[in-house]
Amino acid sequence: MQGPHLLITSAGRRAKLVEYFVNEFKTGRVSTADCNPLAPALYMTDQHYIVPRIDEVDYIDHLLQLCQAEGVTAIMSLIDPELGLLAQAAERFEALGVTVVVSPSEACQLCFDKYTMYEYCLGQGIAHARTYKALEPFREALSLGEVHLPVFVKPRSGSASIEVRQVETFEEVEQLFLKNTDLIVQELLVGQELGVDAYVDLISGQVTSIFIKEKVTMRAGETDKSRSVVREDVFEWIEHVLENSGLVGPLDFDLFDVAGTLYLSEINPRFGGGYPHAYACGVNFPAQLFRNLLHQANLPQIGQYAGDLYMLKHDTVTLISAAELQHIKW
Amino acid sequence: MQGPHLLITSAGRRAKLVEYFVNEFKTGRVSTADCNPLAPALYMTDQHYIVPRIDEVDYIDHLLQLCQAEGVTAIMSLIDPELGLLAQAAERFEALGVTVVVSPSEACQLCFDKYTMYEYCLGQGIAHARTYKALEPFREALSLGEVHLPVFVKPRSGSASIEVRQVETFEEVEQLFLKNTDLIVQELLVGQELGVDAYVDLISGQVTSIFIKEKVTMRAGETDKSRSVVREDVFEWIEHVLENSGLVGPLDFDLFDVAGTLYLSEINPRFGGGYPHAYACGVNFPAQLFRNLLHQANLPQIGQYAGDLYMLKHDTVTLISAAELQHIKW
Repeated sequence: MQGPHLLITSAGRRAKLVEYFVNEFKTGRVSTADCNPLAPALYMTDQHYIVPRIDEVDYIDHLLQLCQAEGVTAIMSLIDPELGLLAQAAERFEALGVTVVVSPSEACQLCFDKYTMYEYCLGQGIAHARTYKALEPFREALSLGEVHLPVFVKPRSGSASIEVRQVETFEEVEQLFLKNTDLIVQELLVGQELGVDAYVDLISGQVTSIFIKEKVTMRAGETDKSRSVVREDVFEWIEHVLENSGLVGPLDFDLFDVAGTLYLSEINPRFGGGYPHAYACGVNFPAQLFRNLLHQANLPQIGQYAGDLYMLKHDTVTLISAAELQHIKW
Repeated sequence: MQGPHLLITSAGRRAKLVEYFVNEFKTGRVSTADCNPLAPALYMTDQHYIVPRIDEVDYIDHLLQLCQAEGVTAIMSLIDPELGLLAQAAERFEALGVTVVVSPSEACQLCFDKYTMYEYCLGQGIAHARTYKALEPFREALSLGEVHLPVFVKPRSGSASIEVRQVETFEEVEQLFLKNTDLIVQELLVGQELGVDAYVDLISGQVTSIFIKEKVTMRAGETDKSRSVVREDVFEWIEHVLENSGLVGPLDFDLFDVAGTLYLSEINPRFGGGYPHAYACGVNFPAQLFRNLLHQANLPQIGQYAGDLYMLKHDTVTLISAAELQHIKW
């Protein structure tokens, strides 16, 4: 029997992550896809495909055809805007024998709608920055002293820190809501920012790995340097957050430790940009996914890594000839 | 006889460049220094030193002591604000038998003062964006139609694109000059941006290598993707620009091709952030510097690389234990 053939879509700049997959899928295959032939991660796999942009109407049809033609048995995206698309099309992929490595649609929606996530946290007793989806409840909370200026104003749905503003006055919040109603107002938390990588087994549904890092410095919106930490309270908290979420596979959490209380900031239901830190510390999600794709469950190994290891990001380069760029359209 | 021992200071995130040096100095030694123990480039060399910040008064004394104690025979910095410091202290280093790999003070000054550079270009017949150091000549030029809005307003001295603004109205330029008199106004050029890496031999004073790349995409103020190009007109132009400049060693140029006319934008008298593209294409400055440090001149090999090769930057990571961080203070 042939090993699994995983197609990583929207591979982009995540060359290191793709390299890890190539290492761990020795008895299987890894291919990559992106709409941009200058995406470096493409060149980490022997097979790579230039596909339409994810916002083109025939994108999913295109992927389905590609999977059939190339014998792909599993598909996984590295970017937020594609996750919902793949989750919604999961049945069509499954009908062709292709496993979609993504959480169910509703679980993805929970992560991408900041107000829904806030309500979920309230219901589960998970601390979360106070969040308001309209001007009136925010004004009231402000007058009651439940929340204080400055606050964050963000799009209700939206990935990463795009369009997030720190706002100093009520009037400015009002102005922003006049221009765009799809905003939320969020309490500003001050504390240590933590990033967590977690893996929920696709077969058993159990949380099998959790890796915690303190963010030390950021650069261009990404964690540039981080420090591994081992904290039982965070492990337990992550398991509690995940209990009724429906989330599976590789997950990326942002949280704040405010004087010992853990506040959820956001969950990205995919590999996080800081995952290489976890892998370098021996927390191996690609190997777990490989076993899952062979229909084998993984045993939980939570906390099996060393603390106080610093991850330092830096640049490397890949050289590609113009001729190589011409040969990979699919 | 022992080979040269090069100390690379302010090594920062430039791990790839340091790796190239380690490769090319096999019969010599390369060490690194930085004020931040979390600078990843430090960990590319066996010997690395945590030194004071470059703005501390005893910084140069510290380096001189370090060179003596550790048998350093050459020193080179990777960041602009340190170049002038090293150039001014060159004689003190030379007295200890340490070669300072930097252009003379006046040549460094030429690069860091944007108005001096403009005057130099006028004198040499090198095209350059029109530049004004005061409000009155700018107002006059504007009324004569010699320059048009929008324009750039920048600090007269200053590195990279820090504090550069595009300004739409004369009134806004006026406001900026009221707050800060050490500004220049510069014509906005529209054209293809080119980056050039050049090496001027330390022994012969000849230009021995020139590598040209078109900037394809930028990210966080740096070239993220670029394409190599071979253009005789650019080679000749670079040689002309360098003729009376006094600049030596590794140099980094930014220029604009405006409908076939080459405009100088700036010169950084050090290794450029995009140099890995040149190295990957076989344009080897570290090997040339190695020979120079053995008192051997290099022969010019201008244009000996292939065009149409794309450089794609991406991330990699280095893992360091807290214990390793403790051991390297000097």
